[in-house]
Amino acid sequence: MHKFVRNLITEWRKLGLPFSDETIVVAVSGGADSVSLLLAIDDLIVRKKLRLRVIVAHFNHRLRGEESDADESFVRETATALGFEFVSKSSTIKRKGNLEQNSRDARYKFLADTARWAGAQYVLTAHTQNDQAETFLMNLIRGSGPDGLAGMSSVRNLNGSITLARPLLSWALRENTEEFCRQRDVDYRSDRMNDDETFTRVRIRKAVLPMLSELNPRIVGTLARTAELLARESSANAHENGKPQAASPLFTGDRLDLKSVKPLTKQELYAGLRSWLRARRGNLRSLQLKHIEAIERLINSRKSGKTVELPGGGAVVKQGGSIVFANIKVEK
Amino acid sequence: MHKFVRNLITEWRKLGLPFSDETIVVAVSGGADSVSLLLAIDDLIVRKKLRLRVIVAHFNHRLRGEESDADESFVRETATALGFEFVSKSSTIKRKGNLEQNSRDARYKFLADTARWAGAQYVLTAHTQNDQAETFLMNLIRGSGPDGLAGMSSVRNLNGSITLARPLLSWALRENTEEFCRQRDVDYRSDRMNDDETFTRVRIRKAVLPMLSELNPRIVGTLARTAELLARESSANAHENGKPQAASPLFTGDRLDLKSVKPLTKQELYAGLRSWLRARRGNLRSLQLKHIEAIERLINSRKSGKTVELPGGGAVVKQGGSIVFANIKVEK
Repeated sequence: MHKFVRNLITEWRKLGLPFSDETIVVAVSGGADSVSLLLAIDDLIVRKKLRLRVIVAHFNHRLRGEESDADESFVRETATALGFEFVSKSSTIKRKGNLEQNSRDARYKFLADTARWAGAQYVLTAHTQNDQAETFLMNLIRGSGPDGLAGMSSVRNLNGSITLARPLLSWALRENTEEFCRQRDVDYRSDRMNDDETFTRVRIRKAVLPMLSELNPRIVGTLARTAELLARESSANAHENGKPQAASPLFTGDRLDLKSVKPLTKQELYAGLRSWLRARRGNLRSLQLKHIEAIERLINSRKSGKTVELPGGGAVVKQGGSIVFANIKVEK
Repeated sequence: MHKFVRNLITEWRKLGLPFSDETIVVAVSGGADSVSLLLAIDDLIVRKKLRLRVIVAHFNHRLRGEESDADESFVRETATALGFEFVSKSSTIKRKGNLEQNSRDARYKFLADTARWAGAQYVLTAHTQNDQAETFLMNLIRGSGPDGLAGMSSVRNLNGSITLARPLLSWALRENTEEFCRQRDVDYRSDRMNDDETFTRVRIRKAVLPMLSELNPRIVGTLARTAELLARESSANAHENGKPQAASPLFTGDRLDLKSVKPLTKQELYAGLRSWLRARRGNLRSLQLKHIEAIERLINSRKSGKTVELPGGGAVVKQGGSIVFANIKVEK
């Protein structure tokens, strides 16, 4: 058995993924990561290690015109050649706001819908240690603060009873997936990145990581595991405290009384503000350390009427002895 | 008042440093960081904002021959010209083991001794955001795991009743200190690095940080604050739990029973092993994620007699249903 396949089945067992009599949905973009995952699953089915119905799901973002359609055709052919069912959805993502985030939301919704339609409990994606490491560095460089450094987890709830699993995340490098495809003599599409995230992620992939690997040849694995451990820590803390953030009881409602907030430590204040904003906005998207620091300055300022606008929606306004969350839309 | 001096007095107040009728010890290497700190303190004394007895303490590591002696002379002259007392100690650091760590230990011991001798409660060092950011990146690249990413704090206990304060750490960039020295027309010595740490730290300073600053021009401040917040989080957790690590009660004595350790989560196991090793060795020096992972494999291995040697001293040996800490010296 190829080492790639052996690693996959070991991780499969560790994550508690099903071995037989179930349906799984595998998200396949056509890049080496997802094609290698599909090939390895096929290998395990041929060896009768797995007896599963596999549905290949492809989301066509339509962001790159004919290229996008060629990706879809390629995935359909690959899936059909392996004898798997194929489902796709085309959608034009709104270019307003955060394109990367909009694409991701639409893609995960499609995957959850497909799983529900097929009666599958599991959706699999082919994220690798490289994705984990690159995202970690992006968030670190951007300054999203400790919370923002927590990595993706190998298993998480996707929607209702549907679970999202990433069986390559904890061990596979992108080069392993490319190598496996080459050895199986199966083509893959080049994984072009969404326009929106291009600059930073490409620089990280092409320049930052190669430079860091001169100092530590295993830098991708090192960063990926660091992100993974940071995620464990923050979820362990959340769990231990029995509440998402240490100071959250203070941080309810749209209006915060400054007298109650001022005695807090910086750590408590920052954690509290993040949980407050998460509850008000529904997410912490694009929120960076500098925005929390701006709100801190607002709290300590003597003037009323000052405003901190938040990227991704909403603003915080100082009104006398309070700060107030205003649900306005701020477009960048 | 120069912005550098204004920032210092603001931080001085925030850290609760003394304003009058006390003695402080300022550690001065002769580099721009420590010379600028000394100049700014002098400025505040001239303005009568501070009324303190200042003792300039210089530790001569004797690692660079005549250069080291020239540094010492320079600091003596600078201190004397400003009317401060000057204390120095020369010592030949043992080159065995971790040179950087040995130097640091000897230097801090000298500073604590000087403070005790002078009746000072505070020792000040001139670490900047750059030191914080570089150390963070070094530990990140090296793979020291989440614990190892916690930054230096601006105030900590040094020894008994003596407090170590770093009044530049939270706001000053190295370039600010150089600029302030230039504007005051005061020379400084170039801060050559210890031989031992040269390669990685120099690459980080000269290549990694400049590249990251293309993606975020304020990268040094961003990384420094991230390290600071990670330190706050880990100390907040330690404090909340009332014990250094969640799982520590299990991790006492030189022998660990595997049956009691196996049910733990990875997070609990890793934290427990770190606190166990810290207690056995007195420190966690040079300990990386990969060593903890090697001990985890040892725990799960079926063979007795296997050993994981730890850099910086000690080894962990599997013996039947236990692992045992052996206090042997492993020289690299």
